[in-house]
Amino acid sequence: MSMIRIGIAGFGNVGRGTAKAVNAAPDMELSAVFTRRDPETIDIGGMNVKVFPLAAAEKMTDEIDVVILCGGSASDLPKQGPFFAKLFSTVDSYDTHAKIPEYLAVMDAAAMDTAARQTTAIISAGWDPGPFSMIRALSEAVLPDGDNYTFWGKGVSQGHSDAIKRIEGVKYAVQYTIPLDSAVEVVRSGSRPVLETRQKHLRECYVVVEPDADKAVIEETIVNMPHYFVDYDTIVNFIDAGEFLSKHTNMPHGGMVIRSGNTGENEHVIEFSLKLDSNPEFTGSIMTAYARAAYRMSCEGLFGAKTVLDVPVSYLSEKSRSDLIKDLL
Amino acid sequence: MSMIRIGIAGFGNVGRGTAKAVNAAPDMELSAVFTRRDPETIDIGGMNVKVFPLAAAEKMTDEIDVVILCGGSASDLPKQGPFFAKLFSTVDSYDTHAKIPEYLAVMDAAAMDTAARQTTAIISAGWDPGPFSMIRALSEAVLPDGDNYTFWGKGVSQGHSDAIKRIEGVKYAVQYTIPLDSAVEVVRSGSRPVLETRQKHLRECYVVVEPDADKAVIEETIVNMPHYFVDYDTIVNFIDAGEFLSKHTNMPHGGMVIRSGNTGENEHVIEFSLKLDSNPEFTGSIMTAYARAAYRMSCEGLFGAKTVLDVPVSYLSEKSRSDLIKDLL
Repeated sequence: MSMIRIGIAGFGNVGRGTAKAVNAAPDMELSAVFTRRDPETIDIGGMNVKVFPLAAAEKMTDEIDVVILCGGSASDLPKQGPFFAKLFSTVDSYDTHAKIPEYLAVMDAAAMDTAARQTTAIISAGWDPGPFSMIRALSEAVLPDGDNYTFWGKGVSQGHSDAIKRIEGVKYAVQYTIPLDSAVEVVRSGSRPVLETRQKHLRECYVVVEPDADKAVIEETIVNMPHYFVDYDTIVNFIDAGEFLSKHTNMPHGGMVIRSGNTGENEHVIEFSLKLDSNPEFTGSIMTAYARAAYRMSCEGLFGAKTVLDVPVSYLSEKSRSDLIKDLL
Repeated sequence: MSMIRIGIAGFGNVGRGTAKAVNAAPDMELSAVFTRRDPETIDIGGMNVKVFPLAAAEKMTDEIDVVILCGGSASDLPKQGPFFAKLFSTVDSYDTHAKIPEYLAVMDAAAMDTAARQTTAIISAGWDPGPFSMIRALSEAVLPDGDNYTFWGKGVSQGHSDAIKRIEGVKYAVQYTIPLDSAVEVVRSGSRPVLETRQKHLRECYVVVEPDADKAVIEETIVNMPHYFVDYDTIVNFIDAGEFLSKHTNMPHGGMVIRSGNTGENEHVIEFSLKLDSNPEFTGSIMTAYARAAYRMSCEGLFGAKTVLDVPVSYLSEKSRSDLIKDLL
């Protein structure tokens, strides 16, 4: 079996989680890491792989099959996505929901660019968007008379944590998004409630402040912050640096998609949930499975930008179709 | 929009549940019901659809796009499957796990038969096999270092209920398969236990006996029945006919697929669960969504036998791909 040659672009938490998944896959080898930083500054953790600047990718089209894009959705992927999709098949976890159609169009144009080589670009293949999207679409198709509910957490929201860190006087901060049990239970009951934002999730923050900071002002600033906190019930806990570093540096996450629907008078509940010790490692594991799909689809000439809704599950597995059918169907 | 013209073959519980789902789909119309019984004896429940003998299907290839096969796996589908797949695209819920590869080959040959017209035959598209299989394959691909666990219930097992009914002196019987909470909890904990058959499910039976029957003998016969009960802890409740008919004639079911896996030291748990008031109506709803996929795949020339692992989720939805991406990704 020839190995699928993988490149990783961006070597933060998700990049490192992805490298772990690629190294664990028997049919893949990690061929290169690309970074927008100085390659000399990247700690590759003892792996036998070279780190290159992004621009070096242009001369490596014969050495890599799929590049997994591990940069952020806000500023990295809009630039790096089309750059890499003109050169290689790609997978990313683009998650700015409102801008996905626009990003899909840009990635499709890059992947289909006949001036370059044609590639397969699977976008938005983290877990939400990702398997959560598959379940939403599957369950809506099966139970058209129904409602979808998505809960996130308990887990760290990087965006909300970063918003707290930008407040003057804050040294460290982490924000956990927590689904409210009361909301989850009423959804599971099949009663199809209408829930306000505040009724679905709680936001709990752990904050370490500078010695001379005014905690009351910081707390007020957090709980009233527009977009991020004002529509939620928010708990702010001030802790010391020691407790923060010992208890709050992991990145657990999870969540659930529930569809509650009816066939006439009969009620049905479909639920998909994730409990993750490490959000970046799980995200990397999903993207690695989709890298296998991108490779196979490109080999079959299925070029262009794809989403998890376009990819049959059989493309994700290392097993042959007949083994999958025998073992798992 | 031209409507997808659906036929239903077999009009028992699943056939009736399927008719309900087809009638609720805005892009489908129920064009015919086929039965191996005398069409005059079928109660069509006031629907505006004609009932035909199976053989009539041969002259109706211009009137129907997809036939949903609602017969049983033991004796109906092995005959009816290839018969219909030579004439129309089909969907079924064939669920004899051990014989699926053989059935797939037979259905593929029928669908690809160039002497007839070529069709798309989606097999084993109930809920297990079905979405449960998709979750097993997806989660194994994402977390290769892990274990899959499938639990069924609480719900009625038709096969086990029928086995009890065959015992002399039994008038009515129903058997509920019940997952043991202790097993589910240990699996959810991420500890990846090895579980014996007896540790995963309990079997609870409600039995109505003839006036002169020996309950002790019947109970012994049930709990020691090879294949069906001997490997399980089984509870037998004798009740009267009134209680049976008022409390035990619905067909609820459900179950869960859990994968517990690791990325190095980090644990992750993926869970998919169903709670169904009516097993036949939910099964019919799934087959109806896959009928849409069979129609589209046949229009695109994607002929042959397919499984849920081969069908992208976007094919199941009435919505356009761009709406799905905008609304649900």
